[in-house]
Amino acid sequence: MIPVGIVGGSGYTGGELLRLLSAHPQAEVVCVTSRRLDGKPVISAHPHLNGFIDLEFQNLDAAEVAEKCDVVFTAVPHGSAMDVVPQLLDGGTKVIDLSADYRLPSNIFQQVYNLDHRAPRDAVFGLTELHPEVADATLVANPGCYPTGATLAAAPMVNAGLVESVVFDSKSGISGAGAEPTTVSHYPNMAENIQAYKLTTHRHGAEMRQELGRLDNNVKVSFTPHVIPSVRGILTTAHLFLKEKIDATHVADIYQQFYINKPFIRLLNNIPVLGAVRGSNFCDIGFEMDAERLVVVSAIDNLVKGASGQAIQNMNLMFKLDETTGLWTPAVFP
Amino acid sequence: MIPVGIVGGSGYTGGELLRLLSAHPQAEVVCVTSRRLDGKPVISAHPHLNGFIDLEFQNLDAAEVAEKCDVVFTAVPHGSAMDVVPQLLDGGTKVIDLSADYRLPSNIFQQVYNLDHRAPRDAVFGLTELHPEVADATLVANPGCYPTGATLAAAPMVNAGLVESVVFDSKSGISGAGAEPTTVSHYPNMAENIQAYKLTTHRHGAEMRQELGRLDNNVKVSFTPHVIPSVRGILTTAHLFLKEKIDATHVADIYQQFYINKPFIRLLNNIPVLGAVRGSNFCDIGFEMDAERLVVVSAIDNLVKGASGQAIQNMNLMFKLDETTGLWTPAVFP
Amino acid sequence: MIPVGIVGGSGYTGGELLRLLSAHPQAEVVCVTSRRLDGKPVISAHPHLNGFIDLEFQNLDAAEVAEKCDVVFTAVPHGSAMDVVPQLLDGGTKVIDLSADYRLPSNIFQQVYNLDHRAPRDAVFGLTELHPEVADATLVANPGCYPTGATLAAAPMVNAGLVESVVFDSKSGISGAGAEPTTVSHYPNMAENIQAYKLTTHRHGAEMRQELGRLDNNVKVSFTPHVIPSVRGILTTAHLFLKEKIDATHVADIYQQFYINKPFIRLLNNIPVLGAVRGSNFCDIGFEMDAERLVVVSAIDNLVKGASGQAIQNMNLMFKLDETTGLWTPAVFP
Amino acid sequence: MIPVGIVGGSGYTGGELLRLLSAHPQAEVVCVTSRRLDGKPVISAHPHLNGFIDLEFQNLDAAEVAEKCDVVFTAVPHGSAMDVVPQLLDGGTKVIDLSADYRLPSNIFQQVYNLDHRAPRDAVFGLTELHPEVADATLVANPGCYPTGATLAAAPMVNAGLVESVVFDSKSGISGAGAEPTTVSHYPNMAENIQAYKLTTHRHGAEMRQELGRLDNNVKVSFTPHVIPSVRGILTTAHLFLKEKIDATHVADIYQQFYINKPFIRLLNNIPVLGAVRGSNFCDIGFEMDAERLVVVSAIDNLVKGASGQAIQNMNLMFKLDETTGLWTPAVFP
Repeated sequence: MIPVGIVGGSGYTGGELLRLLSAHPQAEVVCVTSRRLDGKPVISAHPHLNGFIDLEFQNLDAAEVAEKCDVVFTAVPHGSAMDVVPQLLDGGTKVIDLSADYRLPSNIFQQVYNLDHRAPRDAVFGLTELHPEVADATLVANPGCYPTGATLAAAPMVNAGLVESVVFDSKSGISGAGAEPTTVSHYPNMAENIQAYKLTTHRHGAEMRQELGRLDNNVKVSFTPHVIPSVRGILTTAHLFLKEKIDATHVADIYQQFYINKPFIRLLNNIPVLGAVRGSNFCDIGFEMDAERLVVVSAIDNLVKGASGQAIQNMNLMFKLDETTGLWTPAVFP
Repeated sequence: MIPVGIVGGSGYTGGELLRLLSAHPQAEVVCVTSRRLDGKPVISAHPHLNGFIDLEFQNLDAAEVAEKCDVVFTAVPHGSAMDVVPQLLDGGTKVIDLSADYRLPSNIFQQVYNLDHRAPRDAVFGLTELHPEVADATLVANPGCYPTGATLAAAPMVNAGLVESVVFDSKSGISGAGAEPTTVSHYPNMAENIQAYKLTTHRHGAEMRQELGRLDNNVKVSFTPHVIPSVRGILTTAHLFLKEKIDATHVADIYQQFYINKPFIRLLNNIPVLGAVRGSNFCDIGFEMDAERLVVVSAIDNLVKGASGQAIQNMNLMFKLDETTGLWTPAVFP
Repeated sequence: MIPVGIVGGSGYTGGELLRLLSAHPQAEVVCVTSRRLDGKPVISAHPHLNGFIDLEFQNLDAAEVAEKCDVVFTAVPHGSAMDVVPQLLDGGTKVIDLSADYRLPSNIFQQVYNLDHRAPRDAVFGLTELHPEVADATLVANPGCYPTGATLAAAPMVNAGLVESVVFDSKSGISGAGAEPTTVSHYPNMAENIQAYKLTTHRHGAEMRQELGRLDNNVKVSFTPHVIPSVRGILTTAHLFLKEKIDATHVADIYQQFYINKPFIRLLNNIPVLGAVRGSNFCDIGFEMDAERLVVVSAIDNLVKGASGQAIQNMNLMFKLDETTGLWTPAVFP
Repeated sequence: MIPVGIVGGSGYTGGELLRLLSAHPQAEVVCVTSRRLDGKPVISAHPHLNGFIDLEFQNLDAAEVAEKCDVVFTAVPHGSAMDVVPQLLDGGTKVIDLSADYRLPSNIFQQVYNLDHRAPRDAVFGLTELHPEVADATLVANPGCYPTGATLAAAPMVNAGLVESVVFDSKSGISGAGAEPTTVSHYPNMAENIQAYKLTTHRHGAEMRQELGRLDNNVKVSFTPHVIPSVRGILTTAHLFLKEKIDATHVADIYQQFYINKPFIRLLNNIPVLGAVRGSNFCDIGFEMDAERLVVVSAIDNLVKGASGQAIQNMNLMFKLDETTGLWTPAVFP
């Protein structure tokens, strides 16, 4: 069993790591930290895990955690991870960081987050299907939830050099905003509504540009996020404007070849829905064409493929396990 | 035009008073107070009223408000109203208090709210259909939302002396908990859920016991509230255990006679739903019988008949207007 | 009082016409037809209108309806309206048709709906803010719900000749799909989901192209609709790609001038939300810019400004009433 | 591996059996029948199982199914199961029937369902915690969803002889009504609503009376069901009127002893919520007391502990496996 640590385990991504790891046959969570809940049972923050985890939250001692664990998931806010990750790495453990701190080169990070990067390290961007080199990484920067769904939707066409520009119009469940009550997450504000926000300035745009730019340096990327009255899931509507008209069969071929042997990508003949991926690590992808554009839709669970599930997928590769170990469960529908 | 003041106008009941009064042909809101938002436009807290009210929030000066207004609605938390209401009354204005401070005799209030009553005054309990003496009151204590729906469901049978005991199992939209985000109102906690709370100790039970006790001193009243993933509305399932078996026609007669000439009570041949009352001042009532008990269901909009609408209904009577003035609008469905 | 008829009054737009007209001081509904519910009380289909309308549904006799009414709203499916509208017009009444039958020139209609047009007539496209000539029309083709929100969002910029192309990504409440249960509207399919559909082929695209094409013949229009787990409302995210960069103040000026004296357009400094328009006839508009594009968001209630409210707005103009008569009510929030 | 058949596999309970069995280490689904979908891939009805099951639906041949399978789950409507179950049993397979046909003695069944029972057989009522004799059954009648949550909430107190009467006020997610769209499940009817139905006559009351009557013949049972705007879950509020006052510690003891070694019953110190059981086989139970009554709240997932999960729990016992095999997974929250 791989001894696993979770730093910052009181939020939704922490809870989801614990939920998913409770079914993992080769990994065992041996410590979960939370400054705020130090000494409290982990199930006090995650009552749905009652019966599945007996640990108490502890205050973070990076050296001790590194000592105990072969891999540590850091699920702390951006700007905080950079204070923890280097100590953990220096303690000899592998780290999978779910924050934004290691996803971008430091200069870009500083621009986008308006924050000095105090402790840059080499990291592999953990969008598993695009980065097989995760297998050899000691530090993986797990991608943002929006960039995961958006990049996977467009990557095959961009990689084929066929895309002039893409507009990502993404719709996320509100769990992406975290476990703390806010004005946005207040039920009367969210129910019977859909909230567009940061229409042109959401930070996740930078990850999309980085990843798609790697495939085709000239592609233009626009991104607008929304929150919908749903808890889990991100549906991304990717409006792709192509350099030339191609036919639908060709598009289907491009996707199939690009995602061959990628077990968590399911290519559909129809339009994905959130219900078919909820609670699972799948990314479902479907599309329709007209003369002017290709519209690709992807559906993920933001807390699984968009966060904790993909983190475990990365862990599997880093420990030479089958990519699907502990993650091969269907969605919970209805 | 009756000059109207609203003390504590930044919350949901304040907003609902403003919405409803914007359509009232005989009343005009002339001041709205809020300590927190002093100087800000009223529409900053209520963007849906953009175009309907030009006032700014002001800090409360009770003497000035009493001077300007013929009637003042106080929509402040319980425990605060008692510091404001007497000053307003002494300033010569009528007051309709939406807090709990004047609904119960002071000794009961102190027991139930665990709070000394610093300023008792005579008040009429503003459950309009049961208290025609509202017309002559200078201080009306507007009832709680749960007591409104529950009492109206059971009153005719209790008044007829037929009820041994009643269990009110009430289900409320989350707007009843107010405009401030809380753990309970956090979308991921409320969606796909229903939360029972204060299973045996909710304070509104005292109002139900007072009002039904006036009709039959021996009736036993139990009450359990829940919040459901809806914004507006309270559905009350009243399980009435009768002293003797009676037939359904007799029950229907009792309700019709009791609510004759009560325009906001609609007696149905089927089971009420929240959609048919949303946004309106109606209380819909329906029932079914079996050998053992009579199950009566009532549906109200908690912010209208359960709060601001009933307050205006009371104002109408206090100013010798038709009870329905400004309130005769259908529900918004779907 | 203007005597009003409603042909096809059992659905959601019929119910909404009845709800709104119940508050109209100058109009009175004198007949409501429904083949299926002939002889049944209107409130059997619309229980929320209990107390507001005493009529029974009747089978359609076009001559009789035209005789009785000065204006008739036709709320029947596309393809059916063309069998009714000409008879009504020939009977001497004005008609406001809520179906798609008279929105497009017959040749375009035939292409888009794959249906011969059996009875073309001259009609004015009833997007009120863009078509003041509604005032002189005898037949108004009330626009689709999506085209209303989308066109209003983009029209000022297109009219200014500044737009190269626009992507409308629209999100609608499910009430737009009507009162009949379907697989899409089945609660377990809709809850916690968002369903993209007709990614490139929705028929409402033709209306957008027609209306924006009138303002600038060269603008390229793309449209993808979604249904969200909400009952009412359409939020349209309009991604506008401009011919040249302009600054935000200039954009604001263009919108203000274009919509001067248009009481139902509210230009916001922030991003519109559905809650602020629910139940009302407003269209709220806000925007943000980046170097590459202008993102404009509009919010309407699909059943009001997107259908029945705008139809009454048109009626007001056709009868030389103030545009806002009977419609000047704020949204119901929360 | 135990070869398993599912008769009537196109609905929600069929889908849930497939989902749960996909994780069961000792059972393998070898045939799934559906008359309507004969020849279609199972994933055409259950797209969320894409990748987890390769079978096609087949038309039912009872002899063949019995031949192939060691156990068959019948998930067909009540009134149909009695035409299938005897043939399966006679073919030598064990049967777990999820319909109502074998839950009640035939005479009671005929009364309650107003239907002659054409093929009575001996069956064990499969409320696992109360019926250890399931282990030796060849036919298990899996309980209704409401009776599961309600009976488990009240059984310990009734068994202790302390309960005079109980009112079950239950709130169910709409998935309990099945996969076919209906007026009740139409999103605009269900959203922002809660629908009480069959206030005094729901058939599941008979199962509650049977099971609690076994523990104390004199207890009076009332039951009113509701559907709430949630997909999964049943929260039951059990209002227990006791013969004598007892203290809360005593109550807690009674529950702990009654449910000792019952892994799927979690006794809480607070009030259960649906989120903590969603997708899992747990029944969470909590309570509060006042002088007059004990209010016990139970939470289950109606499709798991209320149907397919409990069915598999029964299968485990029937095959001498650990009760939790394949079912020991936490809820999916948020």
